[in-house]
Amino acid sequence: MRSMASSAPQRGIAAIVGVGPRLGRSIARKFAHEGYTVAILARNLGRLSKFADEIAREEKAQVFAIRIDCSESRSVREAFEGVLSLGFVEVLVYNAYQQPHPTNFTDIRLDSFEKSLAVASVGAFHCAQQVLPGMVERGRGTILFTGCSGSLKGIAGYSELCCGKFALRALSQCLSMEFQPHGIHIAHVIIDGVIGPSEGSQSSSSTSQRMTMTLGIDGVMDPDVVAQTYWQLHVQDRSAWTQEIDLRPSNPPRFC
Amino acid sequence: MRSMASSAPQRGIAAIVGVGPRLGRSIARKFAHEGYTVAILARNLGRLSKFADEIAREEKAQVFAIRIDCSESRSVREAFEGVLSLGFVEVLVYNAYQQPHPTNFTDIRLDSFEKSLAVASVGAFHCAQQVLPGMVERGRGTILFTGCSGSLKGIAGYSELCCGKFALRALSQCLSMEFQPHGIHIAHVIIDGVIGPSEGSQSSSSTSQRMTMTLGIDGVMDPDVVAQTYWQLHVQDRSAWTQEIDLRPSNPPRFC
Amino acid sequence: MRSMASSAPQRGIAAIVGVGPRLGRSIARKFAHEGYTVAILARNLGRLSKFADEIAREEKAQVFAIRIDCSESRSVREAFEGVLSLGFVEVLVYNAYQQPHPTNFTDIRLDSFEKSLAVASVGAFHCAQQVLPGMVERGRGTILFTGCSGSLKGIAGYSELCCGKFALRALSQCLSMEFQPHGIHIAHVIIDGVIGPSEGSQSSSSTSQRMTMTLGIDGVMDPDVVAQTYWQLHVQDRSAWTQEIDLRPSNPPRFC
Amino acid sequence: MRSMASSAPQRGIAAIVGVGPRLGRSIARKFAHEGYTVAILARNLGRLSKFADEIAREEKAQVFAIRIDCSESRSVREAFEGVLSLGFVEVLVYNAYQQPHPTNFTDIRLDSFEKSLAVASVGAFHCAQQVLPGMVERGRGTILFTGCSGSLKGIAGYSELCCGKFALRALSQCLSMEFQPHGIHIAHVIIDGVIGPSEGSQSSSSTSQRMTMTLGIDGVMDPDVVAQTYWQLHVQDRSAWTQEIDLRPSNPPRFC
Repeated sequence: MRSMASSAPQRGIAAIVGVGPRLGRSIARKFAHEGYTVAILARNLGRLSKFADEIAREEKAQVFAIRIDCSESRSVREAFEGVLSLGFVEVLVYNAYQQPHPTNFTDIRLDSFEKSLAVASVGAFHCAQQVLPGMVERGRGTILFTGCSGSLKGIAGYSELCCGKFALRALSQCLSMEFQPHGIHIAHVIIDGVIGPSEGSQSSSSTSQRMTMTLGIDGVMDPDVVAQTYWQLHVQDRSAWTQEIDLRPSNPPRFC
Repeated sequence: MRSMASSAPQRGIAAIVGVGPRLGRSIARKFAHEGYTVAILARNLGRLSKFADEIAREEKAQVFAIRIDCSESRSVREAFEGVLSLGFVEVLVYNAYQQPHPTNFTDIRLDSFEKSLAVASVGAFHCAQQVLPGMVERGRGTILFTGCSGSLKGIAGYSELCCGKFALRALSQCLSMEFQPHGIHIAHVIIDGVIGPSEGSQSSSSTSQRMTMTLGIDGVMDPDVVAQTYWQLHVQDRSAWTQEIDLRPSNPPRFC
Repeated sequence: MRSMASSAPQRGIAAIVGVGPRLGRSIARKFAHEGYTVAILARNLGRLSKFADEIAREEKAQVFAIRIDCSESRSVREAFEGVLSLGFVEVLVYNAYQQPHPTNFTDIRLDSFEKSLAVASVGAFHCAQQVLPGMVERGRGTILFTGCSGSLKGIAGYSELCCGKFALRALSQCLSMEFQPHGIHIAHVIIDGVIGPSEGSQSSSSTSQRMTMTLGIDGVMDPDVVAQTYWQLHVQDRSAWTQEIDLRPSNPPRFC
Repeated sequence: MRSMASSAPQRGIAAIVGVGPRLGRSIARKFAHEGYTVAILARNLGRLSKFADEIAREEKAQVFAIRIDCSESRSVREAFEGVLSLGFVEVLVYNAYQQPHPTNFTDIRLDSFEKSLAVASVGAFHCAQQVLPGMVERGRGTILFTGCSGSLKGIAGYSELCCGKFALRALSQCLSMEFQPHGIHIAHVIIDGVIGPSEGSQSSSSTSQRMTMTLGIDGVMDPDVVAQTYWQLHVQDRSAWTQEIDLRPSNPPRFC
């Protein structure tokens, strides 16, 4: 775990679970930029610490890197002991999943299928359980789940991905129905396309614009742009909350 | 048609079709606030002109009130001659529909059913055809369609509403697939709840916050908050465009 | 209108609207085979009469050919005066739609779009209104609507088809919710593939098997097989009714 | 394991996983009635053996009762060693799930959630893997999965049920896309209602009719009627296969 010295958090904690070099990092940076103390969680603590350093330095924010293995219940519990010790978790983004590879169904190992489900949906269940009591107590909070095109329709060769992502969508809907009346906003973001690398660590002000130019060509999505949608969902007025939103590049690549 | 003297529009025209005292007015005000010249269209020109005056005065914007009957092709064509004469229509919001009343199916008059379809979907088709050539030529533009819970699932007694709204959703998807590669953003907003009256004409800065307090009690949606989502869809970066988004109050009224 | 002399109908009338050489003809033959007096309706009365002759001869059934233009309300009303004069319409199959051709959206003529909606959905509304009072009175009856893949998802270039078929699906759901408690079964069949020619007029017993062999190769659906599903929906026990079912060839052609 | 002496199976084996006194038993009886050797699998071997005896006696069929715990991979593997030793598994019906009880989300135990997912979806994955190689080799076979209304939409308090059933639906779609071209029919049956007790063990010929009378009153589904749909899916001609079908009582009970 690592931290930057900073003033006491005015806002709660934003916990981002499943942080790699693309979407997770951009979401973490956005919430840090907006004044949140951020906890970023992933398996690879070395890389994660590097991200935390970068974001803390650039955004002058408190950023904590905490190791988590979403397929292990003990790891989830221990990681969230750390997260919860930082203060009230006001935002949970669940972004973790196993990288999918198309596989002949009969070649998928049972333990691999179980692990995919564990990472995509059991981990989400478990993380949500850690933060919801605090949110209910305060009558506010946001939980955002990341889905994909495989959340809506099965794809040959991708049963590991699709089963986990369908289950995650179910979780999002069930939680929304139960906790929305408590003032907790739960939404599902369907990312229907490939997210490109974040270049947000350098010259962040002009990055978004520059990347869009480049990305416009091959239809890869800019993670900083996607992160902007996560932020907007969080600050949506409770008079009109979104439960599900999709995102795709205007000009998707041909191979899609 | 009425206008406020103002500097030449830097931006294109935002045309809002189907403007009553709630959502349409709030969307018009938001786009006016953001610097757009706005054309608002509805059947009731008297009320419409009053809205145009109000918004023009409050937002120091050019606002044009143009009569349209979306069930009449001649009326649509003539109205858009007026709209297009104002300049490039950069934004089209299609919000028109017949107010639904639950009716025993066998009591629905054929002409009433036809008119519902005409307003909800043929009108949308026709309006979209008026503005798309200009959008294609410039490689940009936004078309936003307003749906409801009846866009997704049939409801006993509401076949007039549901048939029109299902068709509108189909139109949104077809247009999105055809025109997104041309740089035109087409999205469908599913409003799953009752929108309350806009109080945006007075003390607009604190309105949103105040209404939310009130509205939180009975689960009615604040039209200014919903309009904010329309604006965000319009300014979404093309690297990550939304095709469909839903909105509902955090605490829907019991009778729903 | 034409008829075959035959014994008095034990069962009600089966009215099949939208009868061409493929699915409509096969459904008509199936219901005739099962002992129903059948009314087949389409625009082309010459071809329709030939089908009526064939089916009447082969199935030793009463088959009536009645001209209908589903886009014309007067034509629908007159046609159903004929149908209703035959007796209680126990079954309505609505199968009519405009043959779709992919068209650039801005090239679609407004009257063509209106006609597509009229045939696909207004016609269905109107036909359903003709037969439902009799069904409600007797507490039984079946209405089957034919959908396609364009009923579920918009397709670039096919807004005429998709808008009409989405609306038809809405109609099916609304009617089902309203009339199922009255003992009337309303279902929507999503045909997700190309239906090949019926060879049912010759050697009908072995046809199905033979066609499957042939059809297995190129993924075209056998209309007699599809018609079998329509029949099964009609005779489903009311303890477990289907509202929606999809059908596709096991091995769809590559171009799909 | 228990068996009835009988002639060698002309057809393959039908394996029904998740057999209680309602749907599973009725499906087993139907396939036995149609000449299949049937393996029925569930946790409660005592009750299962009683069912096997009954069905074998009434239908003069070979029926094997095999214990399975779908949440335990070893149990699934061992059970299917037994099933596969009987011959080619031509039909797999997967019907197993944990009985749902509405539970406050924060009160659900992690191990309970994991077990629900294991029974509803991992078990289905594992069973499908046991039988698919044989089906691919022979170029035929049917796998039928049982879903419910919670397969399509999340329900407050039912995340255990919904996550498992969403995942199962994903599995059904993925398998269908991969294996349909191999001649294997995979379908998902959405049972949107409560299935009543089977009375099929007595006077089976008149049962269906009599139950419908009774069941019509309170909207409970007759398991023998539902089983009929499973059978029809199995014998569907491959020119027009169903991937998804829903079933509900014509007159659902008020509390739904």
